[in-house]
Amino acid sequence: MHEFELIKNYFQKLSEKSPGALNLNDDVFFDKKNKLVLSVDTYIEGNHFIDFKNPELVIKKIIRSSISDLVCKGVQPKYYFLSGSGNKKSFSKSNLSKIRKSLNQEQNKYKIFLSGGDTVFSNKLSFTITSIGFANNIVYRNKAKINDDIYVSGNLGDSYLGLLVLKNKLNLNYKLKKYFTSQYFVPNIQLKLINQIKKFANTSIDISDGLFADLDKMINNQKLSYKIFLEDVPISDNLKKVLNLKKLSKINYVSNGDDYQVLFTAPKNKMRIIKKIATNCGVKLTKIGLIQNNAKKSSIVDDKNVQISVKNKGYFHKF
Amino acid sequence: MHEFELIKNYFQKLSEKSPGALNLNDDVFFDKKNKLVLSVDTYIEGNHFIDFKNPELVIKKIIRSSISDLVCKGVQPKYYFLSGSGNKKSFSKSNLSKIRKSLNQEQNKYKIFLSGGDTVFSNKLSFTITSIGFANNIVYRNKAKINDDIYVSGNLGDSYLGLLVLKNKLNLNYKLKKYFTSQYFVPNIQLKLINQIKKFANTSIDISDGLFADLDKMINNQKLSYKIFLEDVPISDNLKKVLNLKKLSKINYVSNGDDYQVLFTAPKNKMRIIKKIATNCGVKLTKIGLIQNNAKKSSIVDDKNVQISVKNKGYFHKF
Repeated sequence: MHEFELIKNYFQKLSEKSPGALNLNDDVFFDKKNKLVLSVDTYIEGNHFIDFKNPELVIKKIIRSSISDLVCKGVQPKYYFLSGSGNKKSFSKSNLSKIRKSLNQEQNKYKIFLSGGDTVFSNKLSFTITSIGFANNIVYRNKAKINDDIYVSGNLGDSYLGLLVLKNKLNLNYKLKKYFTSQYFVPNIQLKLINQIKKFANTSIDISDGLFADLDKMINNQKLSYKIFLEDVPISDNLKKVLNLKKLSKINYVSNGDDYQVLFTAPKNKMRIIKKIATNCGVKLTKIGLIQNNAKKSSIVDDKNVQISVKNKGYFHKF
Repeated sequence: MHEFELIKNYFQKLSEKSPGALNLNDDVFFDKKNKLVLSVDTYIEGNHFIDFKNPELVIKKIIRSSISDLVCKGVQPKYYFLSGSGNKKSFSKSNLSKIRKSLNQEQNKYKIFLSGGDTVFSNKLSFTITSIGFANNIVYRNKAKINDDIYVSGNLGDSYLGLLVLKNKLNLNYKLKKYFTSQYFVPNIQLKLINQIKKFANTSIDISDGLFADLDKMINNQKLSYKIFLEDVPISDNLKKVLNLKKLSKINYVSNGDDYQVLFTAPKNKMRIIKKIATNCGVKLTKIGLIQNNAKKSSIVDDKNVQISVKNKGYFHKF
């Protein structure tokens, strides 16, 4: 069973009396009355991260992945709760020192503070992070409007290429290897968008599962579809170089997730303010498509407006 | 490394700028400004619960264990977030139906609502529950005063005996087996104390790790000790019967945890109001000892005031 089906069929009804649960169909819980925004994510070794050879990097990745849920909604993360399950090897003194150091660096960078959690013994390493922030309002999912432009922050695809490098599925020179694996482990969370995104976005999500998977999720309760211009999807110069060199297809790299960039839609008349804010804040914001009536199917097109099919729409858990 | 040592040595400093973290030395996070109370607990198969043959019971046990942290502080739990890691077998349709049914029963009983979470694939079954409530104040740990009486709610020890039955370490008749395993799986959380405990308690904790382990934790930052009168520690008639029948020692049964009763201290002059509230609310509250200056060591004594030693002080995780 697909994880979304599982949630919808077995758990959604249980959340009916919790308005903040947003029908279990958003990235966060938002209790408007108490101004509380909360997100819970679990990360498993061998699934969300390959192994624990670099605890200092894994910790950064999961912290950023967790706060990304709040950031894409326009919410400053404030406190986080870390629950770790592991054994003597995972939580050796040396590893604990590395974990502490990384957490401290992330705390300073993002102004977040460890506020609780749990530590339990298990031979399977996993972490659950609960992140919270406080806000009067958030940018919700499923609030796109027909003819909205679709935007994305930063670049996509670097992280997935980094994952392939780590899995020894792609050979590159040292410098490129370092670049891509660093993009995989320490994605650049767009903190500067927090106070801006409510000014222009109708709806938003962060890209964790993949561009197209998250586009689907962003409008999954709406009678809408999207059209994406693949040429316009922003990628780094390094990724361009590797795609050319290895004759790889761009679509496979931008659709595999772990990017933690912000995907949002905005009315056409917001284009000027978006450009201005992007320049002023130094955040790359790129228009990559548009929202349309679902009489038309969602599509991805090339520079000649020819439709491209995508094999792997992104990541999901199956039971 | 003992789990408390791990938290103190590696993580406490990271929580310095989060006043609500309470130095990672309380059962909950309490952000007074935002009135938010939060608790995070992880439960692992083979550790916190034996197996998943009775998903409907395991789910009840972990939900109650989670909200118990809030209840013992005088806080009504309101929302909970469930993150489950498991495989196709753990999350089969039949198990999911049982999980949903149990959650629904717990929601009705405790007026709590599922508000989010995560579902991830893993071959090791585990759950992390984040429970939240809202309160102007809580009963803290480490606020006991010299000469305070020590009280406990309900009865202790039934749950541990239930665990031994489930592990086939003790043979009893069907009726007793059923009684004790039910006490293990569905402990009686003292909801009625929520609105009362702030009227009399100086400090409190719930008994999850064991009476003496949790007594130690309750005053671990204070220069105090406790004296417990073992005769006065309340146990059920069924447990009395089994202890007599099998010639078992009471102390081993009241010190093994999983009771989820409330342990608290109160000034001597509150004795009358405590008795009155206990009667009015129908909650058993028993005086079992007193808080003393730590010039005297913590002790457990029998009815002749002779000191009893305890081998196993309760449960903790070791790394």
